[in-house]
Amino acid sequence: MPVTEVERLIELLAKLPGLGPRSAQRAALHLLKRREALLAPLVAALGAAAERVRPCATCGNLDTAERCAVCRDERRDGTVICVVEGVADLWALERGGVFRGRYHVLGGVLSALDGVGPEDLAIPGLVARAGDAGVTEVIVATSATVDGQTTAHYITDRLANCGVEVTRLAQGVPMGGELEYLDDGTLAAALKARRPL
Amino acid sequence: MPVTEVERLIELLAKLPGLGPRSAQRAALHLLKRREALLAPLVAALGAAAERVRPCATCGNLDTAERCAVCRDERRDGTVICVVEGVADLWALERGGVFRGRYHVLGGVLSALDGVGPEDLAIPGLVARAGDAGVTEVIVATSATVDGQTTAHYITDRLANCGVEVTRLAQGVPMGGELEYLDDGTLAAALKARRPL
Repeated sequence: MPVTEVERLIELLAKLPGLGPRSAQRAALHLLKRREALLAPLVAALGAAAERVRPCATCGNLDTAERCAVCRDERRDGTVICVVEGVADLWALERGGVFRGRYHVLGGVLSALDGVGPEDLAIPGLVARAGDAGVTEVIVATSATVDGQTTAHYITDRLANCGVEVTRLAQGVPMGGELEYLDDGTLAAALKARRPL
Repeated sequence: MPVTEVERLIELLAKLPGLGPRSAQRAALHLLKRREALLAPLVAALGAAAERVRPCATCGNLDTAERCAVCRDERRDGTVICVVEGVADLWALERGGVFRGRYHVLGGVLSALDGVGPEDLAIPGLVARAGDAGVTEVIVATSATVDGQTTAHYITDRLANCGVEVTRLAQGVPMGGELEYLDDGTLAAALKARRPL
């Protein structure tokens, strides 16, 4: 029987991915116990993020500027655009530090089940960018899931007349992967795409 | 490589129980994608909770008033105080609706491992309340864990000269519990505390 204010807080926390009603209650009580150490800083951080962080007008990456750090960086290769589903994928690629081109964040994948159509994703912007002079390659780095592959094929079709090369990430055995534990699909893909040693 | 504002948000979200660094990142992106629907309401709810919700001066329950709804309710039995570890336990007992006395929230349990001593818990307040005229029974409803039991014994000692009866929750087979799946400790306790049918 929490008071309304606490009930409302639990209800909203329960909408975060990874938190259910029980863990949201635990999180709310945790916050109310650590007002100075956690609750106040979290309010400030959420406020700052809400106010200052926005999607980059060009690629959809999150930044405090109108154009994100990747798009602003003149040393990066403007001829290659890597298409990712979400900002988390962009961060994962940046952590690796092997890609030095630009990005385009779709904001999801096509999904008949979830009712996500092409108009819900940042595809028009991608087509426009791919048509820019100077862009020669679009790497489609969507997930290797059914929806991710569908999206990749849809993008390939949409970019057919842009005069750019459309490529995708290689599929195969992951680093450190043991054949014994790999699924059949991955094994089949790795075998099909085998390369000379 | 999120911008500082997002990094800070992820760092703070990761301090919530049930969220690790990965799920905190997912939660932060989820929030930044649902600004109007989730981020803004959550900022408001956290702010309201921080500003208006406080521990009851008497029992430690969370409320917007100086004295909580349970302590204000004159129809409740002021002769019995139920001692619980945390507010979540109080809520659980209130959900059941079988207890009509007052509460006392300890704010934790004694734990040598976590460095929680008697001075970290609301024990002085409990001793003072137990000494009040009119209080006849203190029910110690701490968890049936090692720390919970230690705390219960410590409280019993501290209340020895208050002239109140100190009781504890019964231990035994939970409702719907199948003997086959019960641990030995519970079975032993249930057998020892057997009652005439």
